[in-house]
Amino acid sequence: MLLIKGGTVVTAEQSHRADVLCDDAGHIARVAPDIEAPAGCEVTDATGLLVMPGGIDPHTHMEMPFMGTVASDDFYTGTAAGLAGGTTTIIDFVIPEQGGSLLDAWKEWRVKAEKAAGDYSFHVAVTHWDDKVHADMETLVRDCGVNSFKHFMAYKNALMVDDETFMHSMRRAAGLGALSTVHAENGDAVYYLQRALTEAGQTGPDAHPRSRPATVEGEAAQRAIGLASLLDAPLYIVHVSTEEATRAIAEARLRGQTVYGEVLPQHLVIDESVYLDKDWLNAARHVMSPPFRERHHQKALWGGLTSGQLQTTATDHCCFCREQKENGRQDFTKIPNGTPGIEDRMSVLWHYGVRTGKLTPENFVAITSANTARIFNIHPRKGTVTEGADADLVLWDPDATRTVSARTHHQNVDYNIYEGLELTGLARKTISQGRIVWDDGDLRATRGAGRYIERPAFPKPLRAPVV
Amino acid sequence: MLLIKGGTVVTAEQSHRADVLCDDAGHIARVAPDIEAPAGCEVTDATGLLVMPGGIDPHTHMEMPFMGTVASDDFYTGTAAGLAGGTTTIIDFVIPEQGGSLLDAWKEWRVKAEKAAGDYSFHVAVTHWDDKVHADMETLVRDCGVNSFKHFMAYKNALMVDDETFMHSMRRAAGLGALSTVHAENGDAVYYLQRALTEAGQTGPDAHPRSRPATVEGEAAQRAIGLASLLDAPLYIVHVSTEEATRAIAEARLRGQTVYGEVLPQHLVIDESVYLDKDWLNAARHVMSPPFRERHHQKALWGGLTSGQLQTTATDHCCFCREQKENGRQDFTKIPNGTPGIEDRMSVLWHYGVRTGKLTPENFVAITSANTARIFNIHPRKGTVTEGADADLVLWDPDATRTVSARTHHQNVDYNIYEGLELTGLARKTISQGRIVWDDGDLRATRGAGRYIERPAFPKPLRAPVV
Amino acid sequence: MLLIKGGTVVTAEQSHRADVLCDDAGHIARVAPDIEAPAGCEVTDATGLLVMPGGIDPHTHMEMPFMGTVASDDFYTGTAAGLAGGTTTIIDFVIPEQGGSLLDAWKEWRVKAEKAAGDYSFHVAVTHWDDKVHADMETLVRDCGVNSFKHFMAYKNALMVDDETFMHSMRRAAGLGALSTVHAENGDAVYYLQRALTEAGQTGPDAHPRSRPATVEGEAAQRAIGLASLLDAPLYIVHVSTEEATRAIAEARLRGQTVYGEVLPQHLVIDESVYLDKDWLNAARHVMSPPFRERHHQKALWGGLTSGQLQTTATDHCCFCREQKENGRQDFTKIPNGTPGIEDRMSVLWHYGVRTGKLTPENFVAITSANTARIFNIHPRKGTVTEGADADLVLWDPDATRTVSARTHHQNVDYNIYEGLELTGLARKTISQGRIVWDDGDLRATRGAGRYIERPAFPKPLRAPVV
Amino acid sequence: MLLIKGGTVVTAEQSHRADVLCDDAGHIARVAPDIEAPAGCEVTDATGLLVMPGGIDPHTHMEMPFMGTVASDDFYTGTAAGLAGGTTTIIDFVIPEQGGSLLDAWKEWRVKAEKAAGDYSFHVAVTHWDDKVHADMETLVRDCGVNSFKHFMAYKNALMVDDETFMHSMRRAAGLGALSTVHAENGDAVYYLQRALTEAGQTGPDAHPRSRPATVEGEAAQRAIGLASLLDAPLYIVHVSTEEATRAIAEARLRGQTVYGEVLPQHLVIDESVYLDKDWLNAARHVMSPPFRERHHQKALWGGLTSGQLQTTATDHCCFCREQKENGRQDFTKIPNGTPGIEDRMSVLWHYGVRTGKLTPENFVAITSANTARIFNIHPRKGTVTEGADADLVLWDPDATRTVSARTHHQNVDYNIYEGLELTGLARKTISQGRIVWDDGDLRATRGAGRYIERPAFPKPLRAPVV
Repeated sequence: MLLIKGGTVVTAEQSHRADVLCDDAGHIARVAPDIEAPAGCEVTDATGLLVMPGGIDPHTHMEMPFMGTVASDDFYTGTAAGLAGGTTTIIDFVIPEQGGSLLDAWKEWRVKAEKAAGDYSFHVAVTHWDDKVHADMETLVRDCGVNSFKHFMAYKNALMVDDETFMHSMRRAAGLGALSTVHAENGDAVYYLQRALTEAGQTGPDAHPRSRPATVEGEAAQRAIGLASLLDAPLYIVHVSTEEATRAIAEARLRGQTVYGEVLPQHLVIDESVYLDKDWLNAARHVMSPPFRERHHQKALWGGLTSGQLQTTATDHCCFCREQKENGRQDFTKIPNGTPGIEDRMSVLWHYGVRTGKLTPENFVAITSANTARIFNIHPRKGTVTEGADADLVLWDPDATRTVSARTHHQNVDYNIYEGLELTGLARKTISQGRIVWDDGDLRATRGAGRYIERPAFPKPLRAPVV
Repeated sequence: MLLIKGGTVVTAEQSHRADVLCDDAGHIARVAPDIEAPAGCEVTDATGLLVMPGGIDPHTHMEMPFMGTVASDDFYTGTAAGLAGGTTTIIDFVIPEQGGSLLDAWKEWRVKAEKAAGDYSFHVAVTHWDDKVHADMETLVRDCGVNSFKHFMAYKNALMVDDETFMHSMRRAAGLGALSTVHAENGDAVYYLQRALTEAGQTGPDAHPRSRPATVEGEAAQRAIGLASLLDAPLYIVHVSTEEATRAIAEARLRGQTVYGEVLPQHLVIDESVYLDKDWLNAARHVMSPPFRERHHQKALWGGLTSGQLQTTATDHCCFCREQKENGRQDFTKIPNGTPGIEDRMSVLWHYGVRTGKLTPENFVAITSANTARIFNIHPRKGTVTEGADADLVLWDPDATRTVSARTHHQNVDYNIYEGLELTGLARKTISQGRIVWDDGDLRATRGAGRYIERPAFPKPLRAPVV
Repeated sequence: MLLIKGGTVVTAEQSHRADVLCDDAGHIARVAPDIEAPAGCEVTDATGLLVMPGGIDPHTHMEMPFMGTVASDDFYTGTAAGLAGGTTTIIDFVIPEQGGSLLDAWKEWRVKAEKAAGDYSFHVAVTHWDDKVHADMETLVRDCGVNSFKHFMAYKNALMVDDETFMHSMRRAAGLGALSTVHAENGDAVYYLQRALTEAGQTGPDAHPRSRPATVEGEAAQRAIGLASLLDAPLYIVHVSTEEATRAIAEARLRGQTVYGEVLPQHLVIDESVYLDKDWLNAARHVMSPPFRERHHQKALWGGLTSGQLQTTATDHCCFCREQKENGRQDFTKIPNGTPGIEDRMSVLWHYGVRTGKLTPENFVAITSANTARIFNIHPRKGTVTEGADADLVLWDPDATRTVSARTHHQNVDYNIYEGLELTGLARKTISQGRIVWDDGDLRATRGAGRYIERPAFPKPLRAPVV
Repeated sequence: MLLIKGGTVVTAEQSHRADVLCDDAGHIARVAPDIEAPAGCEVTDATGLLVMPGGIDPHTHMEMPFMGTVASDDFYTGTAAGLAGGTTTIIDFVIPEQGGSLLDAWKEWRVKAEKAAGDYSFHVAVTHWDDKVHADMETLVRDCGVNSFKHFMAYKNALMVDDETFMHSMRRAAGLGALSTVHAENGDAVYYLQRALTEAGQTGPDAHPRSRPATVEGEAAQRAIGLASLLDAPLYIVHVSTEEATRAIAEARLRGQTVYGEVLPQHLVIDESVYLDKDWLNAARHVMSPPFRERHHQKALWGGLTSGQLQTTATDHCCFCREQKENGRQDFTKIPNGTPGIEDRMSVLWHYGVRTGKLTPENFVAITSANTARIFNIHPRKGTVTEGADADLVLWDPDATRTVSARTHHQNVDYNIYEGLELTGLARKTISQGRIVWDDGDLRATRGAGRYIERPAFPKPLRAPVV
């Protein structure tokens, strides 16, 4: 048993002085102003700290095979780094081989993830359409705890689905009480532009953002929303990075459509100037899709978050080290796409969001855990501080400052895109399943301690939550 | 003490099985799955019921002197009717005489409201500008528990302020940590159109909506938002009834501006066809401002609510009986503006919002109490079900049906705009300050039991909550 | 020689009293207030009539092979019907077989069109991409008088191009000084919906509009505009039928993008209720793509025209008789898509546009001929009344009324979608190449009298006109 | 008689090789490819030049009494400078004293303008409302050749009208067949901000733009459009300088409303950085209202022009010399508002509009004369090159370059806001009433040669042209 004393409990709804008692089964047993420690109970002092739900990162790619290599953070190192930053749950992606079985892929990923130190769950990608996919989707929802399917409108000749497949899958998902998620970039346009740029001798990382301009995302977001509306299917758009996509989402929501948008903190604070870095490697390390953007998009993304039109934050955590990034030295289209971020997400959002007055602490909880839990149907098990919930908590110091560096981070990758930033707001302690797993610099992650989190289907006809 | 057993507690954040214990001081003492009744404690069975925060109606006009008469529901009858419908708190309006003292008016209203059966608070209207107003605003915020000031852009030659006064007041309010609210209709345009219509012999109630078309509201909302943005002042727009105003609010929020919008249930379900009623009195009974609208506005308002761009619901409860409405028999501009509604707000929203799948029960709590409590800074005292909060609760039967009628309602007025509607969802019991004041048809309202609720100023520089 | 005396000459710019002298070579020799008839000159009295440029219809499909049959109006009958309605020039479409040669198709269409009674020109469709297409495009522009290429985003598995092909073609066209045109409907979505509807037993004509809802067009228009913007290529969207597409065009133009939109008069005045006709054949006769829409789209299309955001009008004239429409008796997806209209376009636009005050006579000229001539680079040869221009004119009676009927029309098809309408405004006389070819009911069309009109490339870098 | 030989005649509709013969009465007698010079006819060679309609500047303030001084260019010097730049007609403003007679003011202005060297006409400002104004408006329209009335939403306590007066006047104007024009800035907000800034010690020219931010204009434009829509009255918004106002106009036009927008070239090319000039006088010389803006507004204004949503260009020519600007040395609100510009308008638009490919020469004519002539109902007398029109022409050298300077300009003011700019495109010769009044540097302006141009009312019910 663990008793957290003296802190201020913050949920998406309110902040109040309360102690939190965690039982040995890893649940929250009691939340009340003054709890006396039961006999033998470990007590931790949270005076001056905010006791918040552990972060949920709904978009990571641990040890993902991608572009001829494999992401360097595996389920153990990646989830451990998450714990160090206050994130206690991830939702990663099962990505079947082309034409491959969804179910087999899900099984494969289950095995890979057994080493995880924190809890995890899976979206499953649909990358083609046939009767087997149709059948596997039902099995996954009914038997495997999957309630969300991912679609790529980008990555032509690889993961990309055409609109017909996308519609088949969205309808099927909705029929099963599952949510469709989408990477919204027009893959045809990207493919065309990549070739046009390389043919024109533009092979460096600075060509990367020009191969995926804002219009490419805005168009695809608009299209995905339109297709979803035809099917009356709820839609979740991952890594929204543009004003165009933000507006498309807001417009659709105002018409009554159920659409959610996810933001990555890196898009909120890093802009496209990184691709002009004279140091090729520094530029290449920022190659991810969608790319970093002109500054005015950041304003739009913040507006999306503060107005409630974008609901969640994630990292798209996908690490590639120097030698991996070097694969694209001659050709930017060969640079493995991805940036690290799981360890710093919460600090970045606190520093740039709450400290600047854009967000309240309650909003912070909403966009780092509560909304995600609700949208992916694991609330109130995750995402709040309430009796009976999983005892996944972060004791947040709102005023402490740290300097980000790859030298000190726990992510298994040799750089950090926030290198050198001084961020105020950090996880003093992280608690997973009722145990302190991060204690002010001391990472006590346990290989294999993480559990697979089943996410139940939504009631049918699909009632996705109004968030 | 009162123990509510067996219900499902619903807050804006979550629903969960829990009992609720209320202490004798009128506070919630405990919320937990299985609470044993203390000795001598009254126990009420909530099996099958939802235990929700009592409704807060932030827009009522009890016994208001207006257009040569006085609204027929006084603070006692009006708040009692609220209790019968599950609403336990109102925020009414102090409206000084032209050029009069804000403070004196506030004192006068305090006296009038002493008879209230439920808790109440006051917005104070600013209808002119001078040093006295400037000084009174500080006193009201500092000493009188007022944290919101109301402005009328309509009612030329009466309550209307020009844009300069509006700006002075918004700046002053923001400087004091108070919120500015506004009735957004262009009073010049209304005045012009009223005269043009009456000069053209259009004197019936059907001329009323034509004297205040949607553009008149959309323009004013846009203007108010623009002026507030110049001052970096948060803004709350009352009774949003048009697509134009809804869009203006959504646009501003997406730009990062702090703007809130309030909806009246009557605008969600009644349209302008009521003004064509052959029966003059029936038509006149629907004369309120803003008027009922074309149907497409209703879709926009629902979209505003479900997307989170409109945050609160209210009634603008302002009752006038037959003989009062008759004042305008020869001239629609003399019909006292106002409709009843406090008793039916929650049922209407449940029936048309939750039963149709537009809103979840959690959303219902958000828009009937929680958001209002946060925006007007009385959360978590009001608007949630948590230990320490006021024991203002409604035990909601989500499936029971009743038929609305003036013959059975408790409002002191001789008609009901929802007459004859069968609504599913009703208050089985209402609890105020820990006492059952409405028990399945038995209204136990006590004259004078209501308390004046002080609302503290927001921190400065003004940090209005992000809702 | 032909002298038109006493009329009011109307161009897109102005109206003025002037006579018009046409020389024997088919050109306008002189426009001046009072021209004395040269010896031997035929004189026609235009008192009370408007002397306007002959109509140009930039979207027709004469004798097109389509959906297993061939459109019933051939180049002779179709252009002759055009002359009867005041239209003297058409731009038809060369549509290569799948994978076939653009050049060969163009040659084939040239032969087919030799029988035309009025002047004609050709857009050439690009339906796949390879080096041969790339090369043929240059030949067509350089040697064949083609300055526009057509792309279908609809008709999956038939004419549809994917976005990559579309981008290749747009870039190639722009490089050659040619304009890209597009049929904007999402072919994947249509295909999916067609199958979903037929699988659900929805096989009648009323399923047709539901297989191509407004979103399907709005999405595609948005996408086409986005892709064109990436290439800095001008774009012309054919048969805009929705508010969504109209707004997308207006937005893009306001950002400085060169985008044009074309409207069909049938979309302006006929709505989707036609598909509910109990008479299967009547409903089937209205099956065209995009389909007829809800009424609010008509308002948007008119707004597009009157505000200058939509520039041209066309007919998509494509006739199928009863036995052809019957092909789809069991399956709406087999109903040949198309409606007649070339003969009535100008009357419909005059009646509903000019008579109602939405458009001036000058606007009427702009949208029936002048803008089209400018956009497709045959101005001032066509589309105005000026010395040296082709003597293609219509003597328009602004006040005369006729009743439309298939019994009296000249189109080679057994129905008329405007059947029974009384339209005010009609062609008293039509003049082609300086000869009267329609004289108040007397159609003097000559088989083979029409000429192929070469349209020169635009200056490069592509300078499409600002219209 | 004057024969212009060898030029290319450019109108808003087309460009073609033609000579132009002007008769002694000052009209265009003939436009044809090869005109033989009549006996005694002066011949001027236009080889390589464009023969265009003389510019019309619909917004000037010659010798206007304003802010305690009088604009330094009088009707003679100002119109003469116009001739030097290719502008042959102005529409100036009659501005009655507060409460004064419109008719008396008009008479007074007629006298002042008698010295003009070029043709002139008058808008008349309505600054208050009473029966006399109502009556005078009719007299002005019926007897005095006035078809447009001006309204100021800015200049509180001076020229500003409230919305009620504005509506009265718009309705009256529409009823008379006259057009309402408006200066759209929220005068209350400006007044408030001016006082707030000066109270805060912000007294320099850099406070000027902060006292009239973009929102102040956007709000007022939106409001004016809304009020006009209530009355079904056409509206012309002068000096549109913001993206907000441009969008409001475009939106309204797309809804079918008749709204026009005017742009000043200075807003297209000068931005707000001028107010940061260390040299007080330089900054003060740029003080005008609306002020210069952030750069992104320029993009919007160009988009408005190229998409046809903004139709006309003007200068708001209003000159104040150094000693006049010095009046505001201690207080920016006392700096006389205004900048010169009539002499350079056409060059600036050619250089930045046509040379950059944004506009065609035909568009240039449209926005410098033709659209203005149509909107203010003096077309085709002005604004085109056609037989019978006034022989007001400019022989434009599209490739010649000049450097702007106050040392060489003809405006009666001691600075030029375009000082030092090298502009390509200039008036080689200007012809007014058939006489060469500017000949490549030789200004032959004649005091009093200008004529008052009566502008007839529009047909009623008001049919303003669709432009």
